[in-house]
Amino acid sequence: MGVAVLNGPNLNLLGEREPDIYGRTTLGEIESACKKACDAKGIDLTFAQTNGEGALIDLVQAARAGDGIVINPGGYTHTSVALRDALSACPCPVIELHLSNPAAREDFRHRSLTAPVVTGIVAGFGADGYTLALNALFGLMDRDKS
Amino acid sequence: MGVAVLNGPNLNLLGEREPDIYGRTTLGEIESACKKACDAKGIDLTFAQTNGEGALIDLVQAARAGDGIVINPGGYTHTSVALRDALSACPCPVIELHLSNPAAREDFRHRSLTAPVVTGIVAGFGADGYTLALNALFGLMDRDKS
Amino acid sequence: MGVAVLNGPNLNLLGEREPDIYGRTTLGEIESACKKACDAKGIDLTFAQTNGEGALIDLVQAARAGDGIVINPGGYTHTSVALRDALSACPCPVIELHLSNPAAREDFRHRSLTAPVVTGIVAGFGADGYTLALNALFGLMDRDKS
Amino acid sequence: MGVAVLNGPNLNLLGEREPDIYGRTTLGEIESACKKACDAKGIDLTFAQTNGEGALIDLVQAARAGDGIVINPGGYTHTSVALRDALSACPCPVIELHLSNPAAREDFRHRSLTAPVVTGIVAGFGADGYTLALNALFGLMDRDKS
Amino acid sequence: MGVAVLNGPNLNLLGEREPDIYGRTTLGEIESACKKACDAKGIDLTFAQTNGEGALIDLVQAARAGDGIVINPGGYTHTSVALRDALSACPCPVIELHLSNPAAREDFRHRSLTAPVVTGIVAGFGADGYTLALNALFGLMDRDKS
Amino acid sequence: MGVAVLNGPNLNLLGEREPDIYGRTTLGEIESACKKACDAKGIDLTFAQTNGEGALIDLVQAARAGDGIVINPGGYTHTSVALRDALSACPCPVIELHLSNPAAREDFRHRSLTAPVVTGIVAGFGADGYTLALNALFGLMDRDKS
Amino acid sequence: MGVAVLNGPNLNLLGEREPDIYGRTTLGEIESACKKACDAKGIDLTFAQTNGEGALIDLVQAARAGDGIVINPGGYTHTSVALRDALSACPCPVIELHLSNPAAREDFRHRSLTAPVVTGIVAGFGADGYTLALNALFGLMDRDKS
Amino acid sequence: MGVAVLNGPNLNLLGEREPDIYGRTTLGEIESACKKACDAKGIDLTFAQTNGEGALIDLVQAARAGDGIVINPGGYTHTSVALRDALSACPCPVIELHLSNPAAREDFRHRSLTAPVVTGIVAGFGADGYTLALNALFGLMDRDKS
Amino acid sequence: MGVAVLNGPNLNLLGEREPDIYGRTTLGEIESACKKACDAKGIDLTFAQTNGEGALIDLVQAARAGDGIVINPGGYTHTSVALRDALSACPCPVIELHLSNPAAREDFRHRSLTAPVVTGIVAGFGADGYTLALNALFGLMDRDKS
Amino acid sequence: MGVAVLNGPNLNLLGEREPDIYGRTTLGEIESACKKACDAKGIDLTFAQTNGEGALIDLVQAARAGDGIVINPGGYTHTSVALRDALSACPCPVIELHLSNPAAREDFRHRSLTAPVVTGIVAGFGADGYTLALNALFGLMDRDKS
Amino acid sequence: MGVAVLNGPNLNLLGEREPDIYGRTTLGEIESACKKACDAKGIDLTFAQTNGEGALIDLVQAARAGDGIVINPGGYTHTSVALRDALSACPCPVIELHLSNPAAREDFRHRSLTAPVVTGIVAGFGADGYTLALNALFGLMDRDKS
Amino acid sequence: MGVAVLNGPNLNLLGEREPDIYGRTTLGEIESACKKACDAKGIDLTFAQTNGEGALIDLVQAARAGDGIVINPGGYTHTSVALRDALSACPCPVIELHLSNPAAREDFRHRSLTAPVVTGIVAGFGADGYTLALNALFGLMDRDKS
Repeated sequence: MGVAVLNGPNLNLLGEREPDIYGRTTLGEIESACKKACDAKGIDLTFAQTNGEGALIDLVQAARAGDGIVINPGGYTHTSVALRDALSACPCPVIELHLSNPAAREDFRHRSLTAPVVTGIVAGFGADGYTLALNALFGLMDRDKS
Repeated sequence: MGVAVLNGPNLNLLGEREPDIYGRTTLGEIESACKKACDAKGIDLTFAQTNGEGALIDLVQAARAGDGIVINPGGYTHTSVALRDALSACPCPVIELHLSNPAAREDFRHRSLTAPVVTGIVAGFGADGYTLALNALFGLMDRDKS
Repeated sequence: MGVAVLNGPNLNLLGEREPDIYGRTTLGEIESACKKACDAKGIDLTFAQTNGEGALIDLVQAARAGDGIVINPGGYTHTSVALRDALSACPCPVIELHLSNPAAREDFRHRSLTAPVVTGIVAGFGADGYTLALNALFGLMDRDKS
Repeated sequence: MGVAVLNGPNLNLLGEREPDIYGRTTLGEIESACKKACDAKGIDLTFAQTNGEGALIDLVQAARAGDGIVINPGGYTHTSVALRDALSACPCPVIELHLSNPAAREDFRHRSLTAPVVTGIVAGFGADGYTLALNALFGLMDRDKS
Repeated sequence: MGVAVLNGPNLNLLGEREPDIYGRTTLGEIESACKKACDAKGIDLTFAQTNGEGALIDLVQAARAGDGIVINPGGYTHTSVALRDALSACPCPVIELHLSNPAAREDFRHRSLTAPVVTGIVAGFGADGYTLALNALFGLMDRDKS
Repeated sequence: MGVAVLNGPNLNLLGEREPDIYGRTTLGEIESACKKACDAKGIDLTFAQTNGEGALIDLVQAARAGDGIVINPGGYTHTSVALRDALSACPCPVIELHLSNPAAREDFRHRSLTAPVVTGIVAGFGADGYTLALNALFGLMDRDKS
Repeated sequence: MGVAVLNGPNLNLLGEREPDIYGRTTLGEIESACKKACDAKGIDLTFAQTNGEGALIDLVQAARAGDGIVINPGGYTHTSVALRDALSACPCPVIELHLSNPAAREDFRHRSLTAPVVTGIVAGFGADGYTLALNALFGLMDRDKS
Repeated sequence: MGVAVLNGPNLNLLGEREPDIYGRTTLGEIESACKKACDAKGIDLTFAQTNGEGALIDLVQAARAGDGIVINPGGYTHTSVALRDALSACPCPVIELHLSNPAAREDFRHRSLTAPVVTGIVAGFGADGYTLALNALFGLMDRDKS
Repeated sequence: MGVAVLNGPNLNLLGEREPDIYGRTTLGEIESACKKACDAKGIDLTFAQTNGEGALIDLVQAARAGDGIVINPGGYTHTSVALRDALSACPCPVIELHLSNPAAREDFRHRSLTAPVVTGIVAGFGADGYTLALNALFGLMDRDKS
Repeated sequence: MGVAVLNGPNLNLLGEREPDIYGRTTLGEIESACKKACDAKGIDLTFAQTNGEGALIDLVQAARAGDGIVINPGGYTHTSVALRDALSACPCPVIELHLSNPAAREDFRHRSLTAPVVTGIVAGFGADGYTLALNALFGLMDRDKS
Repeated sequence: MGVAVLNGPNLNLLGEREPDIYGRTTLGEIESACKKACDAKGIDLTFAQTNGEGALIDLVQAARAGDGIVINPGGYTHTSVALRDALSACPCPVIELHLSNPAAREDFRHRSLTAPVVTGIVAGFGADGYTLALNALFGLMDRDKS
Repeated sequence: MGVAVLNGPNLNLLGEREPDIYGRTTLGEIESACKKACDAKGIDLTFAQTNGEGALIDLVQAARAGDGIVINPGGYTHTSVALRDALSACPCPVIELHLSNPAAREDFRHRSLTAPVVTGIVAGFGADGYTLALNALFGLMDRDKS
């Protein structure tokens, strides 16, 4: 059992790539914060990043039997029907997360192919969004149990 | 000082209107939960609802000198340039909130006129989204102060 | 109990504004005809007009517990998601009415945001459309009872 | 002299085809109701159905010298410029009728090629719509005479 | 008799809101300049602002029997069919005014629903645009009289 | 051997229907003029009209082994892929003819599904267009022979 | 009982019309192949072709009480809502067949109005597609029975 | 008095440029044919070609007081509002001519900005189209005189 | 030093061409009015008209070192990226002027390629618009100086 | 030599994922059925599945020298130009297969990037589609040999 | 024999106009660099600039009999079908050149009407792009000769 | 230090796949030519090809600390936001290269998602484009150093 926090392409560059948009926190620091939040609840955490569309789908398929998924699909948000299909096959709750606010950026980032099949969305809070999303996920998990 | 939680058209019907989409919690119960979350932080709360576009803009203008705004613009999300202009004139952080996940509903709900001018977005968590959004706002307020 | 006939923006100018399109009958004369039709059936009538989007939503919310609504949303037909949401929250039958035939006018009048959530539509019969719509509503009310 | 009630493709299947959308009344029962309404006014009725676009145009051309037409163009509503041209050549009043509410169905049913050239529209009232449309037509005929 | 200068949503924030786009002159200062221009011509001035769509329509209806209207519809320019209908019912000349140049801003500001029904347009001259528009209106009033 | 002049829906109403657009000449008079033009060249003429899409395709198939076709497809110009397929299967030259100038009319008349598969187009010359088109066809026939 | 193989406009020209696209097999040869396939299974076959939209709908209505339909709607695939409505009223399985691959041809052939209401699609196999589609239909019929 | 035959960009290359599309006849040969046709009617001919949009407008303005214009606007057909305005200011009849059939070519050639303001259109007949268009023009001139 | 008033295609026909849309004042009369307005301020005036896109760009380039430009680009408003580039290279203020109100005319006149790069816009005031635009320009020049 | 049956993303979940849409047969059972069909013809079979776009292209490149390919590209059908390019580089016949009928699902599934470059399409027959597609492929292989 | 380097509207302002986008090198300096590159290969160079669409077409027609053309069409890139037609009539290789990267600028610069008919494209290298393009052209000329 | 030349999907088939479009040079021959060009400048070269989107992003991330990148993204040009994000995170100059001219091919190849974030573009010169692009890159590197 446990939850997974999955990260798509270029998120390994966090802290280094376009810090005005994505902030200066690294993915390692985010992983630590997520770990801490899960430990406090006694929940196992899988934390992973990949640049590959197929590899991200593999990660989703591996996590779908768990308690919940927080996913930042990066650029695949806007282009991947295959990822959407993988997420829509998840029986557990799924939260889509974005560091920046896609609605405030280029037009092609306004359409999310994955959003229609997730439970909830958290966007625009930078690195803090991860713990917010985990808390939201814990809430959904409690609700499902009750 | 303090924060405002502002609600647009038809949200006074919460708990009664299309409960499959919007849940069974009433707006009064949400107000209580918000009050509790603010009290815990010693922050003043303004909580309001209106069906009018102009009245909602009046509320935003009244709140813009405060510490932050959580707004659920309801149907005006998708149609109001005037509300967008009011939000974009707010120096404080603004969080857009939706009970349901608009991306999973009709096409005309996929475009948010207000989203590009807010700081962050929380959607799809039902009534729980309000306290999630307040917590996110408290985080942004702390960050602004530091 | 009873039915409501609700009128949106600029309909207070009926008889005076662009008579080639909207005819020469005034809203007062229409109210009298509606009153007469309801009296004949022993049904209470609420008849109202407002220029405000929020005010029109208030009227719909006040009428939704009644037996049925005839609404001429005027310009809000084509722009108001909020009004649509209010109508879609009505358990009673709702009839959308237009004096002129919107399909024969400008392109932006061809899309009705409200039409997909109403029971039926009556358009193009001028002031006579109101009594036609009331008769249609009485038929729906009879059907619901049987 | 007299009026015509003309029915397009698949309406011969009424009562049998997708009853959740189109109701359980047959076209024969509708014809009887129309006959009764016309007899009460002493007006001749032509009632016809055809699956053919050209055949429906033939029927319109045969009826255009009469007192008025009620037409349910079925699927040709959305695709036939030729039928539109035939209707637009009618000097008598024409009412477009739909059993269901096209605005509540698939996108391609939202555009009516015929609506811009008819006098009025009645939609969403099921089989009862025929007598409502005839009554509306009688009103238009009285108005033309006065 | 006299003219009206009507202002839509958020214009009460002038001088304070996004001064890079809208300038530093307040609405009070603009009212004074308009008053001065009207006094010089011996013409009565009604000057008003509101955030409400319905309230703005009320103002237009109240002014339509006068000699002319200058209107800055703010965000309603791009979204209000109801306001357009109110303006198109005005027998007097109407001038649409914008402080900034909408063509140089976001895409959704490029479409004006009201522009097709007004007499003339003045845009991009900041606060000075008001007296330019009044002078243009005086010219139209002279032309109508001659 | 010989040529065919084929006419689509509503052209039997020529002279009577919307004379401001289509002129006052009847289809019988046009047939006489075509007959005279063909007789002068010693060429057999088939002249026909039908309201049916399938019937018009039957006529095209019957004429495709001849020397050439002049076709006024009426409303099917804009909607019939089936007619286009029939014309594109014609080894002989085909001329598309319109009495009025479709480019000067409604938007949906601007697209011709048949035009891309015909040899030439003659539009806007009223009833005279038929003899112009026949002369153009005779020219194409001479060119094919040489 | 039995199955129907229905063919739309211009398919009577098979073998003769644009053989590079449609092949050199005639419709008669296809009928023989279908007959043989049905005889082998002891199933009755209705095989028909028509150029008319209404006539094709008549054929569909006649066949809908049978065991299954294979239909090559020709040009009506892309334009006929009426045919779609007829197919969607069929309780038996329906297979849409195309000789060529519409996706490899003109843009207007990429949209099929009928495809969303059929069970399955077979395209691009030329004349052989008919027996492939019949075999697919036999499979569906077996599945329905079990 | 007299008529003008005006040619737009690249038509000076006729006979040399892409002969598969435009044929092998030169513009000089076309001028001779036009001259002969006009001489036979005793009508003066102005024949000109230019690559410039402004220069073509100059030619149209010079010809507009004459008896009629045949214009092959070449590439400006699809892009020039200015040329359209010049043509729409012509009191005499104007015929738009194309050597090839624009509907059978690239998408951007399907829209003609000039077609909605001309009297008639002749397209697809190669060099012969010029004399066909002149004959059509003579017919229009005769009609105007009678 | 001084200002330029530049006029695009067909404006030499003013007073003569479509007077219902463009009025009866000639371009010569407008030049006189502009001259008078400039003389009163002691400012040099260049006034020019051309039908050519390149020639209009030449005029803009010649004027860009001056104090300001009023330009009525006529049909090039809607089609010329090249003119837009020339205007956007002007360090002085530029005012776009239209005699009629483009928003009230054909769809293709609703998009202005030049508007996004000018300072301000004046439209719909007929010939009087020129002196209004010059006054607006004088205001901008004063502001730049202060 | 031999044929390949290639499967894209999420098809490893068959039988488990959304069985209402995709059926209850597993991919292993499908592989067995394909094996059996190939064995009966004495043809070698490569059967593979991958979630990766690049990995699927690798599989296509490995199979292109063989006798034929059946491919179910899953979500990459609608988004992968790279896969299309790989398929279009195959000299052997290629059949595109879908378990469900994409035309009956979401809009973004209506466009297939791969369909225009394959030989034939089989869709909507569930797991049975694989053997139908193999049979179709065997037919194409026989045809190529003869 | 020789090559031509042709420049469209506003390129005479190079070095002066928007240097952040177009750089600080003048067209004269570019001409010198091109001269030097051609001299080194012993190839004649025609170098020209014009603001006129027709004049640019004249230049293309004059150069088409030469060995190759490098053209920077400026704003006409996006709007001129006439220039495209001129380029498509060139038997010699043609290279389209842009100083800046049009894909990184406004939407209307993303469509090039000329690009589909040229041999190759060089964009985004500022003034250096001219010698890069000439070198590319020399390579194409060598290839054609071999 | 050094430069990278990166190749996307299907480029390993060069010389073999669709030689009419992509030419007969193999990727190995291109690598040799690139090696030679870099050796002459004493610059290290990384040359790689992959069919995977994620793998191509990995390559870009590995090269971004170097002196420059030439990338031929193949089919990912038109579909990959993730690759675009990777390229936009490169501090070094990036050149996008295409063997053929995408503007002359299918519509979906006209949009490049990567082009807006690269420095320059070279397209249409076949295998020679690689050394042209490297020379352009060397020029950019020199410019950055000076």
